[in-house]
Amino acid sequence: MQVTQALAELATLGATSGGIDRGLFTPAEHAARTRFAAWARALGADVTQDRCGNVFARIAGSEPGLAPIQCGSHLDTVKDGGAYDGAYGVAGGLAALSMILTRGARTRHPLEVVAWAGEEGSRFPVGTLGSAVYAGLIHYAEIAELQSADGEPFADAFAGPSGALAGVPVRETNVPPAAYVELHIEQGPVLERGGARLGIVSAIAGQRRYAITVSGTAGHAGTVPMRDRADALAAAAEVVLELERSARAIGDCVATIGTIAVEPNQANVIPGVARMRADVRSGDDATIERIAAALYDACTRIGERRGVGIAVDETERRAAVAMDAAVIETVRDVCRALDPDAFVLTSGAGHDAMCVARVAPAGMIFVPSAGGRSHVGEEHTAPADLELGVEALANALVALDAAFAKN
Amino acid sequence: MQVTQALAELATLGATSGGIDRGLFTPAEHAARTRFAAWARALGADVTQDRCGNVFARIAGSEPGLAPIQCGSHLDTVKDGGAYDGAYGVAGGLAALSMILTRGARTRHPLEVVAWAGEEGSRFPVGTLGSAVYAGLIHYAEIAELQSADGEPFADAFAGPSGALAGVPVRETNVPPAAYVELHIEQGPVLERGGARLGIVSAIAGQRRYAITVSGTAGHAGTVPMRDRADALAAAAEVVLELERSARAIGDCVATIGTIAVEPNQANVIPGVARMRADVRSGDDATIERIAAALYDACTRIGERRGVGIAVDETERRAAVAMDAAVIETVRDVCRALDPDAFVLTSGAGHDAMCVARVAPAGMIFVPSAGGRSHVGEEHTAPADLELGVEALANALVALDAAFAKN
Repeated sequence: MQVTQALAELATLGATSGGIDRGLFTPAEHAARTRFAAWARALGADVTQDRCGNVFARIAGSEPGLAPIQCGSHLDTVKDGGAYDGAYGVAGGLAALSMILTRGARTRHPLEVVAWAGEEGSRFPVGTLGSAVYAGLIHYAEIAELQSADGEPFADAFAGPSGALAGVPVRETNVPPAAYVELHIEQGPVLERGGARLGIVSAIAGQRRYAITVSGTAGHAGTVPMRDRADALAAAAEVVLELERSARAIGDCVATIGTIAVEPNQANVIPGVARMRADVRSGDDATIERIAAALYDACTRIGERRGVGIAVDETERRAAVAMDAAVIETVRDVCRALDPDAFVLTSGAGHDAMCVARVAPAGMIFVPSAGGRSHVGEEHTAPADLELGVEALANALVALDAAFAKN
Repeated sequence: MQVTQALAELATLGATSGGIDRGLFTPAEHAARTRFAAWARALGADVTQDRCGNVFARIAGSEPGLAPIQCGSHLDTVKDGGAYDGAYGVAGGLAALSMILTRGARTRHPLEVVAWAGEEGSRFPVGTLGSAVYAGLIHYAEIAELQSADGEPFADAFAGPSGALAGVPVRETNVPPAAYVELHIEQGPVLERGGARLGIVSAIAGQRRYAITVSGTAGHAGTVPMRDRADALAAAAEVVLELERSARAIGDCVATIGTIAVEPNQANVIPGVARMRADVRSGDDATIERIAAALYDACTRIGERRGVGIAVDETERRAAVAMDAAVIETVRDVCRALDPDAFVLTSGAGHDAMCVARVAPAGMIFVPSAGGRSHVGEEHTAPADLELGVEALANALVALDAAFAKN
């Protein structure tokens, strides 16, 4: 099984003019799961699913009763997303399985490839949905009642024509794996700029999100003297630059203001209100705490100096998730054998591995993203890097089977 | 005739939940012109109109053949505008005429009150429409073909039920006045903060407008390190603050960025593009030139340092218009006699006086705007200040009649 060919096939499902649109439990996403199940069976794997839409492809190990060495990622996409984010870890998982079987290697643990449901929060407004339920981070009952953007409850969608796969048994319980490793594109420029073809993830960044509202005083752009203004946009501009400055000064983190809107947003009126959303991430929670403190402090200072109100509301908080030390070591050895320039990095984006890490030793392998671009139709990774990542994953699964021999 | 009562009546025409909506050649605006003509005739004035919708109310002078001493303003409003902007100068003009007649004063020149059509660019997309055609700044032929926002040509609208006033003669030619003085609310906080009840306008600010487009690189908010970013919003924030800093440093001017939009405007994506509109005004064109040069220079520096493109396009340019020295002097003496604290200031907003000034000696009298607020329903001026402004206008018309005796 060729990973590049499988990805090209998946890319036709949900193709739009701008990329790929494959929301959870849509016909395109259902077709992708169906394709996954067919490929898995062709390799001789047992295919099961759970009531979240997670699909499991398993090859038995030599020793009965062991939990699987597991890999996987997701088949859903953001709107106008790319062909590699998620799909690579799923198709690449099957390709790695195929490589192991072709080599005639036999592992003690079962090997399992998982297509996790709804990692992108596509259609249903919860990210890493399938892996979060699998890891017990969210109760299934909560998810069952979740409404899609178009008003359909999750449980109804699963029971509908684009939900469960026909003829695939539904697992009643999920047992944690012995170890987990996720193959994924980096979605950033760090590997490419560092000259590496493989990366080993040390941690998935923690994240906080803030809604920032600046309340100044609107006024006629021609008649209010500069000294009498309480310009909400000028104050917001200072917040943008202060947050950027703190993130650079503190280091090992990223901070972004991705949205801004002013009111009344007319060329001849001084903005009275400015609303922004800020996003702060780091592999180290203490670093996030420092950035957050600097943000609150900056907003207080700027607000007082300019005579405007600046409200900062935390809207989301996710702790950093460290990958397992033993998995990191095993994966690093495997990757360095294939690419001496491979290095360890933090993942700025969230992944299913961050849920599985709560219940099992977990790690990740990254391959470069051209230009660091992701979540867009132009998302690209060189075919040779895709193949190398699959080889690294195959070797990692075998190495983890040995490393976690006691489980 | 009471100016406050007249304004209260006009305020009922086009009243909305947010203020007043009286676009040119709408039923509400037609009703306001109809009311104006009726009030003028009640004072014994001759009423005429031109094919732009300007309405003229004239009382004959004692000496035949002289051009009028003229005052006026406009009856149209912005959407959800206030009760004073424009309407005050029209109703106040009639109230001043009434005061002069009551006093039994007789001027050598005719006295004329004009309700200028479409000053706000309401419904038809040209500001100071009526006075610009009157002063020969725009050819009527151009205006005749102008389409309203809802697709009606200007000439058709004038011929329609909300256009020309029935039974009012249409002037074929417009002769410039001997002198012009416009009574208006300040629309800014300068008089209020300076403790004056009357202001004398020295110049109407020149204005330039710019469309500024920052082109950076969009990217994942979690995966692109700070040092690798070309964040369009961060660069735009620097432009906002640099423009503010230049305007404060250079002085005697205002500079505003009233609109901003970023793309893709998602909380988890670094902005790739930021678009803004800047507005720069000063009573002195050389000052505007300095701000403009500083803006272009700042954009070049910021763009180079941050590796983003910053395009600055001038979208509008209007030179500053000085009021006539003799009119300023006459009006200043009249105002200081009523309010010793009256002072001379620049008008940041545009007015019909800026068109009339091209063909006749022109000046303006301002009264305070509460909190500097204008173009909103809450626009307010104290009744005593409104009355004082009318008295100043009446005295100014009489004084100008004497000062411009030779015309």
